[in-house]
Amino acid sequence: MVQSMPDVSPTKWHLAHTSWFFETFVLGPHEPGYRPFDARFAFLFNSYYEGIGPRIARDARGLLSRPSLADVAHYRRHVDEAVGRLLERRGDQPALATLIELGLQHEQQHQELLLTDIKHVLGSNPLRPAYGAAPAGEGRSQPPPEPQMLRHDGGLVWIGHEGPGFAFDNEGPRHRVFLRPFAIADRPVTCGEYLRFMRDGGYDRPELWLSDGWHERERQTWRCPLYWEPHDEGWHLFTSSGLRPVNEEEVVAHISYYEADAFARWKGMRLPTEAEWEHAAGGAPPAGHFADAGTFHPGPARPGFYGDVWQWTQSPYVAYPGYRAPAGAIGEYNGKFMSNQMVLRGGSCFTPAGHIRTTYRNFFPPAARWQASGIRLACDA
Amino acid sequence: MVQSMPDVSPTKWHLAHTSWFFETFVLGPHEPGYRPFDARFAFLFNSYYEGIGPRIARDARGLLSRPSLADVAHYRRHVDEAVGRLLERRGDQPALATLIELGLQHEQQHQELLLTDIKHVLGSNPLRPAYGAAPAGEGRSQPPPEPQMLRHDGGLVWIGHEGPGFAFDNEGPRHRVFLRPFAIADRPVTCGEYLRFMRDGGYDRPELWLSDGWHERERQTWRCPLYWEPHDEGWHLFTSSGLRPVNEEEVVAHISYYEADAFARWKGMRLPTEAEWEHAAGGAPPAGHFADAGTFHPGPARPGFYGDVWQWTQSPYVAYPGYRAPAGAIGEYNGKFMSNQMVLRGGSCFTPAGHIRTTYRNFFPPAARWQASGIRLACDA
Amino acid sequence: MVQSMPDVSPTKWHLAHTSWFFETFVLGPHEPGYRPFDARFAFLFNSYYEGIGPRIARDARGLLSRPSLADVAHYRRHVDEAVGRLLERRGDQPALATLIELGLQHEQQHQELLLTDIKHVLGSNPLRPAYGAAPAGEGRSQPPPEPQMLRHDGGLVWIGHEGPGFAFDNEGPRHRVFLRPFAIADRPVTCGEYLRFMRDGGYDRPELWLSDGWHERERQTWRCPLYWEPHDEGWHLFTSSGLRPVNEEEVVAHISYYEADAFARWKGMRLPTEAEWEHAAGGAPPAGHFADAGTFHPGPARPGFYGDVWQWTQSPYVAYPGYRAPAGAIGEYNGKFMSNQMVLRGGSCFTPAGHIRTTYRNFFPPAARWQASGIRLACDA
Amino acid sequence: MVQSMPDVSPTKWHLAHTSWFFETFVLGPHEPGYRPFDARFAFLFNSYYEGIGPRIARDARGLLSRPSLADVAHYRRHVDEAVGRLLERRGDQPALATLIELGLQHEQQHQELLLTDIKHVLGSNPLRPAYGAAPAGEGRSQPPPEPQMLRHDGGLVWIGHEGPGFAFDNEGPRHRVFLRPFAIADRPVTCGEYLRFMRDGGYDRPELWLSDGWHERERQTWRCPLYWEPHDEGWHLFTSSGLRPVNEEEVVAHISYYEADAFARWKGMRLPTEAEWEHAAGGAPPAGHFADAGTFHPGPARPGFYGDVWQWTQSPYVAYPGYRAPAGAIGEYNGKFMSNQMVLRGGSCFTPAGHIRTTYRNFFPPAARWQASGIRLACDA
Repeated sequence: MVQSMPDVSPTKWHLAHTSWFFETFVLGPHEPGYRPFDARFAFLFNSYYEGIGPRIARDARGLLSRPSLADVAHYRRHVDEAVGRLLERRGDQPALATLIELGLQHEQQHQELLLTDIKHVLGSNPLRPAYGAAPAGEGRSQPPPEPQMLRHDGGLVWIGHEGPGFAFDNEGPRHRVFLRPFAIADRPVTCGEYLRFMRDGGYDRPELWLSDGWHERERQTWRCPLYWEPHDEGWHLFTSSGLRPVNEEEVVAHISYYEADAFARWKGMRLPTEAEWEHAAGGAPPAGHFADAGTFHPGPARPGFYGDVWQWTQSPYVAYPGYRAPAGAIGEYNGKFMSNQMVLRGGSCFTPAGHIRTTYRNFFPPAARWQASGIRLACDA
Repeated sequence: MVQSMPDVSPTKWHLAHTSWFFETFVLGPHEPGYRPFDARFAFLFNSYYEGIGPRIARDARGLLSRPSLADVAHYRRHVDEAVGRLLERRGDQPALATLIELGLQHEQQHQELLLTDIKHVLGSNPLRPAYGAAPAGEGRSQPPPEPQMLRHDGGLVWIGHEGPGFAFDNEGPRHRVFLRPFAIADRPVTCGEYLRFMRDGGYDRPELWLSDGWHERERQTWRCPLYWEPHDEGWHLFTSSGLRPVNEEEVVAHISYYEADAFARWKGMRLPTEAEWEHAAGGAPPAGHFADAGTFHPGPARPGFYGDVWQWTQSPYVAYPGYRAPAGAIGEYNGKFMSNQMVLRGGSCFTPAGHIRTTYRNFFPPAARWQASGIRLACDA
Repeated sequence: MVQSMPDVSPTKWHLAHTSWFFETFVLGPHEPGYRPFDARFAFLFNSYYEGIGPRIARDARGLLSRPSLADVAHYRRHVDEAVGRLLERRGDQPALATLIELGLQHEQQHQELLLTDIKHVLGSNPLRPAYGAAPAGEGRSQPPPEPQMLRHDGGLVWIGHEGPGFAFDNEGPRHRVFLRPFAIADRPVTCGEYLRFMRDGGYDRPELWLSDGWHERERQTWRCPLYWEPHDEGWHLFTSSGLRPVNEEEVVAHISYYEADAFARWKGMRLPTEAEWEHAAGGAPPAGHFADAGTFHPGPARPGFYGDVWQWTQSPYVAYPGYRAPAGAIGEYNGKFMSNQMVLRGGSCFTPAGHIRTTYRNFFPPAARWQASGIRLACDA
Repeated sequence: MVQSMPDVSPTKWHLAHTSWFFETFVLGPHEPGYRPFDARFAFLFNSYYEGIGPRIARDARGLLSRPSLADVAHYRRHVDEAVGRLLERRGDQPALATLIELGLQHEQQHQELLLTDIKHVLGSNPLRPAYGAAPAGEGRSQPPPEPQMLRHDGGLVWIGHEGPGFAFDNEGPRHRVFLRPFAIADRPVTCGEYLRFMRDGGYDRPELWLSDGWHERERQTWRCPLYWEPHDEGWHLFTSSGLRPVNEEEVVAHISYYEADAFARWKGMRLPTEAEWEHAAGGAPPAGHFADAGTFHPGPARPGFYGDVWQWTQSPYVAYPGYRAPAGAIGEYNGKFMSNQMVLRGGSCFTPAGHIRTTYRNFFPPAARWQASGIRLACDA
C-alpha cells in the first residue's frame, strides 16, 4: 500500500486500476445494463483520463487504506467474470475484441510497473528488504566479449506497425524515414563499462552533459545509477533479491536519459534514434531476458536487442506522421503524453515476454530512473 | 501504515516508537548487558533525538512496509517483558521509576496522537471510512446554556507544577505571575457559535486576523474547520464515526490558533493566557470527556475546563522562569521546541483520562488543525 | 536593471554580456597579451558556459547595481575598439572572422532578447508603462483574407544549412528527410481566430491539450495569451506601446507551444514539423515584419513565412543527423540545450531583419510565452 | 531599485511609501478635498494595510522601474508641502498632531530599514561595493574588559509606556510583571566571543540549538553570522564600508534569534526577557552608538544598553495585558504581527538616535538576520 514517490503506485492500486480499465472501457459501453461494482471507484482508480471525470491526485494513491486488499480482490473477480461472460457471448465482435485486447495489454504494462514500483518501495526502506531470493547462479558470469558495432547502410526505410496483430496506436502509421549509414552495438552497456565512466569523472564533467541533465544531476546529487551505494568493499546495488556487490558483467540499469547521453558522449558515440534501433532490430521475433525468467534483474550482457533493459533512444516521443489519437477518452491512452519524454526500446527484465514487439515505443521523461532503463550505443558510419 | 501528511505517523510507527523509547531510555542505560532487539530500529523509530543519532526523515515513516506489524508486536512484547523484569528487580530505585513513568506518559501521548493520526488518514480517503460506530445518543443534544464568564481578581498567583506526582519538565518551576482582573468562559465554544462567525464573513475579514493567520488561510484556502464540508443539506463534518451533519450544540474542534484568535476578536473578546487558564481551572481534579469515553469526538458543550478539546491560549510556548532542560538526550523531550508554538490546555476527547493535569502544557504550531483543538474565550474584567 | 523573472535579464546585463562574449571568445584567444577589462566580469557576465568557469546565478542578474551603466558603456567601447584593431590587423584569417561573425550574430540574438525582456519588465509593472509611442496607423487594419493552405507533395527533401554564409552549428549538417504530402497555411493565426478558440472553451477542454500543457495551464492559470487582460470593454493587450484593445486582425503572439498545439487540435489541424516549414518556406530570401520596422509588435496577418511571430513547430529541438558540437566552451552555444525544447521558425517583430534565415532554428521550452511566439497551421494532404 | 530578497525593499520604494503613509493617514482624512497625487500609488506603495485595499506583492517591489526616482522626489515634495500647510493651519489639534508624529516615527523606522536594505543589496553583489568610506579609526580598538553581570533582585516591577511623549501602541499599557532575581551583562557580545563559539563547534552541536533553529541552520547552511566570509587570511565581514577582516573587539551583529539562543546556551546562560531588559535598562535616557554617528556598523563593545545592535530577548512578541489595537487600518500598524516573532531591544547603529526609547519593542521572526541584531546575555541570580 506504500507510495514511495508520486511516480510509484501502491500494488493494491495497480490491481484495482487494471480492473477499473476493463469496467470503464469494456463493460460500461458494451455490456447492456452493466452497473459499476462501486460507483466511487471511478474516482479512486482512474489514472489520468480527463474524459472520464475527476480522480484522486496521483501522489495521494498511497492514502487508500480502504478499499481493503480483500475488497480489491473481490472487485477483480467480479470484473473478470463479467468480462468472461461478455467474451463468451460477443467475443467475435471485432470492436469488442480490440478493447479487450487493449485491456490485456494495459494489464501487462501494469504488471511491469507493479514490479518496478515494489522495487522502489523496498529500496526506499532503510532495511532494504528483498522481494524474493536470488536465483541460483546469479553473480557468477564471465566478462562479456567486447560489443560489436553492427553497420547499417540506412537509406529510405519503413518504420512502425501495420497489419494484423496488436499494437498501440502510437506505433503507427507505418511510414518511411531516411537514415544515414550508422552502426549500433550488438548488446547493452555493462556495469563494468559504466564504472569506468564513473571513475573517469563522468559525473563531474559538464562538457559531457546536456544542460538540463547537468542541473538535474545537481538537484538530485546523482553520482551513480539509482539503487547503487558506495560501501567500504566497493559499489553495491539494491536488487529485487536484496543488496549485493555490483557485478561488472551485468547490464547496467536504472539510468536516466541524461546519464545515458553523457555516457555515450564520453565514449565518443551517441544513442541510436528509434528508427535506427527498429531498423537494426529487424524482423526477427523478440527474444531475451524478460519478466518470465523470474529474476527481475538484468543478467550478464549478451548479444541481442531485447530484454534486460529498456534502451534509451535519442528520439523524443512524438507522433508518427499521420498519427491521429482515437476519439473519446481512450484517445488519452498515449497521444496526450507526446511532449518532454524520450522513447525507449526493447523491453526489460520486468517486461512480460508476450508484451514486447519490434515496433513497441516505451516513453519516459529524461530524468526517470526507476524503470530498468539502460544504454545501447550507436555512431555514424 | 499510511502517512497522510508529514505531521502524521503511521499506527505501526507509533507502536514501535513507544517501545523504542523504553528500550533507549530505560533498558539501555539501566539493564546491564541489554542488547537492542534490532540495532536498525534506532534509525527507524527515533523520532527527533539528535543526541541518540540519525533517523529516518519524518515524512518517510509511511514507507516502512517492513518490519511487519507482527514483527512490531513481537518487539513490543520483547521490550515490555524486559521492562517488567527490570521493574520487579529494581522498581524501587527512584531514577529508574522516574524514567519508566516518563515512558508511560510518553506512551499516553502517543495513544492520543495515534487516534488523531488515524482520523487524519481516514479523513484523507475519499471514501471517508469510519474508525468505529457512532455511540448511541450522539447528535441528539439540547442547546447549551449561554456561557458564563467567570470573574477572577488576578493579582500575584502561583503557576506551574511542584511537589510529588508526575509532571513534565516544562510544567515547572512553579513560579509567580501577576495577573490583572479577568473573566473566562465556563465552557468551550460550540459549532453553532462558530457557524455564526462563519456566516458573518469571519473568514473574509482581514481585520479579525493576525497577519500570519490571514496568509495561512489564503495559502490553505481555509473557509471552515478541518473536517467540515459544505453539502447541499448544510455543513457536514467527518468524525471518528464517519461523515454526518454538524451538530450545533457540540464543541467545535480542529481549529487553528489563528482561527481561534480571529473568532475571539470577532466576539470582542480574546483567548486566555495560560496563567489565567491555570489559575481559573483551580485545584479541582480534572474531570470531563476524555478518550476513555470511547467516542473520540467532542460532545455537547458543558461547563468545565477539561476534555472535549484542547483550548488554545494566547501564550507562546516558552520556558518558565528558572527552567533548565535535563542533561542528555532526554533533555530534548520538551525544551528544544520552545519557539513558534502556542500553549493549549485542558485535554481532549482523544486524551487518556489519567494523562491530564491542571499544569499540563500542550503545544502546537499556530497553524496546526489535526488535533482536537478548540476555543475558550476570556476578556479583561 | 530590473529582472522580472529568471528567464529575463536586465538590459545592462545584455549590454555587458555581449561584450564579454567578444572578450572571451575573440580577444582572449586571438589577441596576444590581451588582459580582461575587469577580471571579475567573467563571473558577472558569463551566461552558461561551464567550460569558462563559475558564474552568478541566472536569477541574480537583477542584483547588479554595480557595475553602473556608465561602466558597462565604457566596457563596451573598450572591447569594441580592441576587436576593431584586431579585425584590421588580422581580419583576413578565416578562423578569427568566423568567431567575430559568431559574436555579431550572438549580439543580434541579444538585441531581440533585450526587447522582449524590456517588454516583460514593463508588463510586470502595474502602471503598464510603454516602451515607445504607437506607430501611426496601428490598429486600423482590414480583416485578413482566409488563410490559404499551400499543398506540398513531400517526398525526400533536403533540409538544413550548407555552403557559404553564416549559420549556427545546429542548422547543419544538411540532410535528407522524407515528408508525406502536407499542406501549410500561408499566414500565421490572428487574434480574432484565437479569440474564437477562447470563446469556444478552448482553455477548459482537456481533450484539446497535451497532458503537460493541461497541467501547466492549471499551474499558471492560463486563460488567454500572455499580456492579454479582460476589461469591461473587451480584451486588451499590453504592447511595447502600452495597453490597448485587442485588434482581431493582428497576428496572435505570446503563445506557448501547449496553447499553439491545443489551438491546432481545435481547428482539426496540427502544427507543421520544422522540415515541412523549411521545405514550404523554400529558397526565397526572408521578407516580413522584423525589428527594423520599429513597432515591436505583430501587425495584421499577411501571407508569408517570416516575421511578426516565431512559429512553433511540432519538432522537438534535437541534433540533425551527423551533428557534432564544436570542441571547447564554444561548443556549449547550442548543443547542450537539445532536450525539452521545441523548434520555432521564421523570426518575429523583435528579430533583426539581417538575422533570419530559412534554415534558422530557434528553440524554447514548450511553456515559454515571453517571446513573440505564435501559430502557423498545417495538416496532412 | 534592487530588491535582493522579499524582506528587502528598494530605496525608491521606501521613499515613496513613507510619503504615501502621510497621504493616506494624515492628508486623506484630515485635509478637506485632498486628492491623491496619483491614485495608482495606493496600489504601489501600500505595504500591508488590508483596510486600505489591495497592493503589489511584497516581492514585486523591485519591478517598479516606474515611477522614476525623480517622480518619487516630486511626490515627496508634494506631500511634504501639503502636510506643512495642514500643520500650520491645524497643528494644534491633538488627533492630527498624533498622526503626524506617527508618520514621523514611521519614517524613522524606514530610515533604518533603508540602510539595512541597501547593505543587503550591496552585500548580494559579487563585487561587494561599499556604501561609504570607512570612518577614520575604525578597526583599531582595544579588547573590551570582560562583561560585568549586573544583578537585579526582581520582584513586582512596572513595565511599558505610560504618560506623555510618543510611544507605539504596542508599548502599553504599562503593567506589572513579577521577576525573579537575575543578572544581565553590561554590554553586548563581541565578534571575538562569538568566534570562540564557532571554533568550539557551536554550529555543529544540536544540543545547543532549538529544534526550529537547527533545521533553519541546515536549510540555509548557516556556519557564521550573515555577511561573514572565510578567507585565507581569516574571517572577513562585509560592512557598509566594504569587505574587511573581522575585528574581534567589535559587537557581533547580523545574528538570528536561533544563533543568539544557541550562543547563550553554550555560555551556560540565557537571553534576557524583555521585562528583565527594560527593568535593567532603567530610566536613564538612551545613549549609545546610533545611525547619527554615520558609521552604519557596530563599534567596539562598551558598557551600555543602547546602540550598536538590537538585542534579541527570549520574549515572543505578544500583546501586553489590556492591549487593544486602534480601530481602522491604523490598527494594523503593530497589532496584527503578534505571532511568530521575537522582541528585540535597544536600537542599533542603523537606528536614528531620536527614535529609541527604553520601552521600545522591535520585533522580527527568529530566523531574520539582515538587521543589526546581536546578543546580550543574562542568567538567573
